[in-house]
Amino acid sequence: MSEYLYPINDILFSLRSVAKTDRLTPYIDDAVDGDLLDAILGEAGKLAEQVISPINASGDKEGSRVENGEVIEAKGFKEAFKAYSEGGWIGLSGDPEYGGQGLPSYVATAVNEGVQAANLAFSLCPLLSLGAIEAISLHASDELKDLYLPKMLAGEWAGTMNLTEPNAGSDLAAIACKAIPDRDAFRIKGQKIFITWGDHQMTDNIIHLVLARLPNAPEGVKGISLFIVPKFLLDDQGEPGQRNDVQVVSVEHKMGIHASPTCVMSFGDKEGAVGYLVGQENQGIKAMFTMMNNARQGVGLQGLAISERAYQQALAYALERKQGMNADRTERVAIIEHPDVLRMLMTMKSQIDAMRSLIYVAAVENDMSHFASGEDQKLAIARTALYTPIVKGWITEQAQEITSLAIQVHGGMGFIEETGVAQHARDARILPIYEGTNGIQAIDLIGRKLHSDKGAAMMSLLADIEAEVVEWQKSNVSDYAEKVRLVLEQAKAATQTCLTEMEKNPVIGTGLAYSYMMLMGYLIGAWLQVRALYAAQNDSKLDKEQRDSWEHSAAFYCDHVLPRAFGCSHSIMFGVSTVDKLNRNAFNR
Amino acid sequence: MSEYLYPINDILFSLRSVAKTDRLTPYIDDAVDGDLLDAILGEAGKLAEQVISPINASGDKEGSRVENGEVIEAKGFKEAFKAYSEGGWIGLSGDPEYGGQGLPSYVATAVNEGVQAANLAFSLCPLLSLGAIEAISLHASDELKDLYLPKMLAGEWAGTMNLTEPNAGSDLAAIACKAIPDRDAFRIKGQKIFITWGDHQMTDNIIHLVLARLPNAPEGVKGISLFIVPKFLLDDQGEPGQRNDVQVVSVEHKMGIHASPTCVMSFGDKEGAVGYLVGQENQGIKAMFTMMNNARQGVGLQGLAISERAYQQALAYALERKQGMNADRTERVAIIEHPDVLRMLMTMKSQIDAMRSLIYVAAVENDMSHFASGEDQKLAIARTALYTPIVKGWITEQAQEITSLAIQVHGGMGFIEETGVAQHARDARILPIYEGTNGIQAIDLIGRKLHSDKGAAMMSLLADIEAEVVEWQKSNVSDYAEKVRLVLEQAKAATQTCLTEMEKNPVIGTGLAYSYMMLMGYLIGAWLQVRALYAAQNDSKLDKEQRDSWEHSAAFYCDHVLPRAFGCSHSIMFGVSTVDKLNRNAFNR
Repeated sequence: MSEYLYPINDILFSLRSVAKTDRLTPYIDDAVDGDLLDAILGEAGKLAEQVISPINASGDKEGSRVENGEVIEAKGFKEAFKAYSEGGWIGLSGDPEYGGQGLPSYVATAVNEGVQAANLAFSLCPLLSLGAIEAISLHASDELKDLYLPKMLAGEWAGTMNLTEPNAGSDLAAIACKAIPDRDAFRIKGQKIFITWGDHQMTDNIIHLVLARLPNAPEGVKGISLFIVPKFLLDDQGEPGQRNDVQVVSVEHKMGIHASPTCVMSFGDKEGAVGYLVGQENQGIKAMFTMMNNARQGVGLQGLAISERAYQQALAYALERKQGMNADRTERVAIIEHPDVLRMLMTMKSQIDAMRSLIYVAAVENDMSHFASGEDQKLAIARTALYTPIVKGWITEQAQEITSLAIQVHGGMGFIEETGVAQHARDARILPIYEGTNGIQAIDLIGRKLHSDKGAAMMSLLADIEAEVVEWQKSNVSDYAEKVRLVLEQAKAATQTCLTEMEKNPVIGTGLAYSYMMLMGYLIGAWLQVRALYAAQNDSKLDKEQRDSWEHSAAFYCDHVLPRAFGCSHSIMFGVSTVDKLNRNAFNR
Repeated sequence: MSEYLYPINDILFSLRSVAKTDRLTPYIDDAVDGDLLDAILGEAGKLAEQVISPINASGDKEGSRVENGEVIEAKGFKEAFKAYSEGGWIGLSGDPEYGGQGLPSYVATAVNEGVQAANLAFSLCPLLSLGAIEAISLHASDELKDLYLPKMLAGEWAGTMNLTEPNAGSDLAAIACKAIPDRDAFRIKGQKIFITWGDHQMTDNIIHLVLARLPNAPEGVKGISLFIVPKFLLDDQGEPGQRNDVQVVSVEHKMGIHASPTCVMSFGDKEGAVGYLVGQENQGIKAMFTMMNNARQGVGLQGLAISERAYQQALAYALERKQGMNADRTERVAIIEHPDVLRMLMTMKSQIDAMRSLIYVAAVENDMSHFASGEDQKLAIARTALYTPIVKGWITEQAQEITSLAIQVHGGMGFIEETGVAQHARDARILPIYEGTNGIQAIDLIGRKLHSDKGAAMMSLLADIEAEVVEWQKSNVSDYAEKVRLVLEQAKAATQTCLTEMEKNPVIGTGLAYSYMMLMGYLIGAWLQVRALYAAQNDSKLDKEQRDSWEHSAAFYCDHVLPRAFGCSHSIMFGVSTVDKLNRNAFNR
C-alpha cells in the first residue's frame, strides 16, 4: 500500500497564491511569516506521514470495542494522540491565555489537512475536542474556562459534542435530554447517539458538551441549553477525581471510520450526571451555531484530505501497474499511459486542486472575519457564511466521486480490502452526512445565506468573480476566463430563479437547493483554478513542469468538470415546475 | 430492515410497453403469452422475496471461508440454491435438448432482476454457471455437451469462469496458464485469481471453464484456448468421481458481495489438472467474446437490481422516519415531505425507470438477434452490440449514485451496517469493475461499436430515436419530446466529433470515450422514459395515480437528470485538445 505524502508544496501554493494569506498582514501583528509557516507545515507533514498514517489501515481493520463499560480504541492510537498533543498541535489556534498559540486558523487548517488525510478516524478525536474547546472559549464562564481549557488545549483531556438523540437528528428541536438544577450544577439525564469518540483511553478525562432541556424550558430549539459533563468530576486541585454518571452503552458497526468509536452514551442512569451550564439558559443552539462554520468547514477539509490520499494511492498504482500495450504494440505499459486512466486521474487531480483552493480561501476569509475590522470584517463574515455550506456540501460530494475513482483505477484490486483504497471510499461516505447532511447544507445556502439577505452576499461574490474574470480577459489565461464567464452568466440567472422561487415558497423552493449548491461549487472551483493558473504562470519559483501541471489541471477542470454546471443551471431554470409538483404519492404505482 | 418486493408491475410494463416483447411474436412459435409470463414472474418474485432475500444481510455479515482446502459458504445459501435449482430457474432459457426450457432470454432477465436484487452475492453463482453453460452450448463438442449440460442446467453442478491472472486482468493477452496435451485430454497448470464462486459446497460438482495456452501457441490473445476443468472428474456413469488437481488457495476480503467467495484457484499443483478442450485450439478468446454480450448485460442488470432494492429501502425509511415540521409548523412529518428528500427519491426512481427500460429493450433486442431472421436479425445483432457497453457501463455508474443516495436518505443511520443499506452500496461498487471495467466498456463503444462501422449502427439508433421524437411532437408528450430532441442534436454532433477523433488517433480518441458512453446513456434513458410515459398515458389498465407516477418520473428525468448530458457533450465537443495533451508528466509538481 502506498504511503501518504503531505502535499506541502500544493498547500503552500494554495495558501499564498490562491487564498492570499497576505490579506491578513495588516491585521495580525505577529503574522506567521514565510519561513515559519514552511517550518510548521514541514513538521506537521512529518507527524502525519510518520506517526498518524501508519495506523490508518490497522485501525480500520481492528476498530474499537466496549469492554467493562469502557471503549478500547485501536492499537497505537493512544501513542499517536500523545505525540500529537505533545507536539502542541491541538492548541495551534487556541487562546494564548489558556496555553494556545493564537495562530490564524488557516495554519491549523493546513496542519489538519495532513492529519485527516493520514487517518480520518484518528483526526476526529482532536477535531471534536477543538469543537468543545471553541464552545467553552466562546460561551463558558471564566471559572469554567480556567478549569477546562488549559488541559484540553494541551491535549491532556479530550472533548466531545453530544447533540443527536434517536428522535433528534437533523431536527435538534426534538431534543429530549433533561437537565435538572441541583445546587450549583445540574443533573443530566438522557441518551445520546452517534457520539464520535464518546469514550476512549487516550486521555485522562473526557469533557462532554451536552445539549439538554431545563424543566419548563420553551419547546423546540429555543429551549435547549448547553452543559459541560466531564467523564471524571474534578477534585479540589482541578484533577480528574470521582467518576461521573455517564456511560458508553455501545459502539456502532459502521461502513467506515472504523477506528473512530461512534458511541451510544447514557447520561444519568443512576443519580444523574453532574453538568455545568455553558452560557445562558436556553441559548444552547445559538452556542452550537457559532461553532458551525468551523465544524462544517472542517468536514469539507476532510473531503479534500481523503480525496488527496485516495488520489495519491491511485496515481502510484497507475504508474506501477502494467497492463495493455503501447500504441505501437511493442511493449507493455503502465496503465497511466492509457487515455481513460489519464482521464480518471486528472478528474481527481483537477477537482482536488479546486477543492483545496476553496478550502484555503474560505479559511483565510474565516480568519479575516475574526482579525479584520470595520467593513472588511463585515464582508468577511458574510462571505464566510456563504462559503461554509459550499465547502461542506460540494467538497464532500466531490470526495465521493474521487474516492470511488481511486478504486476504479485499481480495477479488481480496488475492491480487495487489503489494497487499502476501498477504506478511503468507505471512510468518505460519512462526510455528506454528519455535521448537517448535504441536503441541509444546500438548504442553508439557498435559505439562510441567499434568501435571507435577498442575495446581497451572493451578488457580491459573483461581482468579485466577474471583476477577476474581466481582468484575466486581457491576459494569457483569457480562454479559461471566457469559460468561467459562460458559467458565471448561468449562475447569475440561476440565482435569480432561486431567489424568486424562495420568495414564492421558502419550503418548496428548497427542492432546487442541491442543484444550486453544486452549481456554485463548480463555478467557484473554476474561478479558483484559473486564479491558481494565473498565479502559477507568474510565479518564478515554479519550474516549467510545475506550471504545465497547473495548466493541465485548470484546462481539464474547465473543459471536463465545469460543464457539469450547465446541467445544474438547466435543472434550476427549467425544472422548477417538476420539483413543485413532487409529492409522496408520486412514487405509487 | 425493509424487505425486498419484486416490482412485477414495473417489470411487466417495461417488457410489454417499452421493450415491446410482441416484436418477437412473428419469430417464436410457442411465445410466452401474457398469463404465462405473469405466472412465471409471480413465482420468481416469491422465490426472490421469500427464499433469497432473507439471507442477504446474514451472508454479508458471515462471508465465506476456506476450511481444509474447501470453501464453506454462508449459512442458508446451500438450501436457497437447492430451491432455486429445483424450481427450474437455471435452465429457463437453456437448450431444451439438454433439459432447458428454451424461453426467450428476456424472461430469464426479468427473473434475474429479482434474484440479483434479493441477494447479489448469491445471484453470482447461477450467473457464472449460465456463462459456463453458454460457453459449452456454443463451442463444445456434442460429447462434452451431453456430459455436462444436463446436470448444469438442472443446477446439480455449478460452473465458473477462470480468466484473470495476477498479470492478466483487463489485458487477457498476458494469460500465462498452461495446457499440456496428455492423451485425449490436457493437463492445466497455473494460477487464476478473482474467480467468483470458485469453490463452494452448494453443488455436487463445479465445472471450471479455464483460459490457458497450449505449448507453442501464438503470443497474445490469438494463442489462448478454452478448457473444461471439473472439480471432480466424471466416472464411467458420468457422475463425479476422483478429485481433479484444482484447489482453492484463498478467498479475498472484499468491500462488498461478501457472501460470494472470490477465489484464488490453483490448477495443477501436483500432476496437472485434467482439462478438456472446448472448441478449437487458440480460439478461446473468441469463445469468451460470444458470451460477452450476455455477461455484460447481466452486470448492467445487477446495477438496476441493486438500485431498485436500495431505492425501496430508502423510500420505506422516508415514509416512516419523522424529522422536522410541516410547512405550517404544526406537526412533525415523515422526511418524505421535505422537498430535498423528494428530490433524492425521485433522482433514484426516475433513473431506475430509465435503466429498467433500457435493460428490457436490450434483452428483447438480444432475443431478436437470436430468433429473428434476415435484415431484422442483422439489425438486432448490431443494435445489441451497441447497447451492451451502455447497459453495462452507464447503468452500473448510475447504480453508484443511486445506492449512495439510499444511504443519504437514511442520514446517520445509513452509515450503520445494521441498517443494511450500506451493504447495497458496498456490493454495487464491484459492478463498474468486473466483466470489463467501465472504461473498457466506453472504449468498446467508441472503438469497436462506433468507429469500426464508421458510425452506421449508432446513426441508425439515433435515426430511430429521432423518428419516435417526431411522432411524439404531435402528441401530449410533445414538451418532453422537445427536451429529448435538444439532447439528440447534441448527441449527433458529439458522435461526429468522436468519429473524427477516433479516425485521427484511435488511442488518444479513447480519452473521450467515457463522456460519450454517459451521454448516450442519458439520451437513451430519456428517450425510453418518454416512451414509457406515452405508453402509460394510453394504457387503460393503469389508474390515474399510476399514470401520474410515470409522468413525475419522466418529467423529473427530463428536467433534472437529462441535463447532465449537456455536460458530457460539452466535454466532448470542446475538450478534445485538453485530453490530447494529457500525459503522465501532467501530475508532476
